[in-house]
Amino acid sequence: MRVLGIDPGIGICGFGLIETTSRADAKAVDFGVVTTKIRAPLPSRLLELYDGLTEVFESCRPDVVSVEKLFFSKNITTGIAVAEARGIVLLVAEQHKIPVFEYTPNEIKKTLTGYGSAGKPQMEEMVRMHLGLEKKPKPDDAADALAAAITHSLIKL
Amino acid sequence: MRVLGIDPGIGICGFGLIETTSRADAKAVDFGVVTTKIRAPLPSRLLELYDGLTEVFESCRPDVVSVEKLFFSKNITTGIAVAEARGIVLLVAEQHKIPVFEYTPNEIKKTLTGYGSAGKPQMEEMVRMHLGLEKKPKPDDAADALAAAITHSLIKL
Repeated sequence: MRVLGIDPGIGICGFGLIETTSRADAKAVDFGVVTTKIRAPLPSRLLELYDGLTEVFESCRPDVVSVEKLFFSKNITTGIAVAEARGIVLLVAEQHKIPVFEYTPNEIKKTLTGYGSAGKPQMEEMVRMHLGLEKKPKPDDAADALAAAITHSLIKL
Repeated sequence: MRVLGIDPGIGICGFGLIETTSRADAKAVDFGVVTTKIRAPLPSRLLELYDGLTEVFESCRPDVVSVEKLFFSKNITTGIAVAEARGIVLLVAEQHKIPVFEYTPNEIKKTLTGYGSAGKPQMEEMVRMHLGLEKKPKPDDAADALAAAITHSLIKL
């Protein structure tokens, strides 16, 4: 099963593709970020994101997409921009007819580390170990996307 | 100038195209709504919206788009869905290379009626009068979209 994890964002949108055959066997096939020009108007950034994600979906050819679910805990203005970006992620997935599963940040932390309030270094270390990587995947947004992909594979396999 | 007003929403997205030559001369060319299936999964609704809006842009051929700006005053969950829908609106505008202008609900009310806390019946009556329509445009979402279009034309002409 090829699972594409996505960490939605308007400036930096992380993606991470893993391939798994069992709970114990998972490898990272590809990961990275789609970025948009910070000073560009929002509609132009959303199109950049759409084009970038379309490329990611076409090169990754996932069986399923796992997306971090949105919460507005801190900053509502940032939250609106993330929701707009998230709309683009879900649209591109649907245009490629790939089923989408969503997990909250707490579900992802709990699935990977056993508890919902795990810190970032601990999460990144679990992602690294689970995928048998030598180093922690960078940047953070790609690591978060891989964590979403691993979460789906551990819950579904 | 052909101004396409849009009132973003995930279930019902209003649109209204007006044509203006001066502040005193404006007519409604077309208005209506794009709707999505309420029980369908969100990615599928976003694709329905994308396809519907693409048709609207292609039949309306606007010079400019005027979109109601989002505020999270009441319901944050609804707000997330509206923001996701709004991402699709801005994407489709950018794909058609149409410049987007955004106005807050208060700016729209103030421009049409003179004060920012105008009620819905009063707003609808101003839209009807300004466009020389016999009846109030229906549904509400289309009337709101026409109000956004009129606002842009009054501010820019």
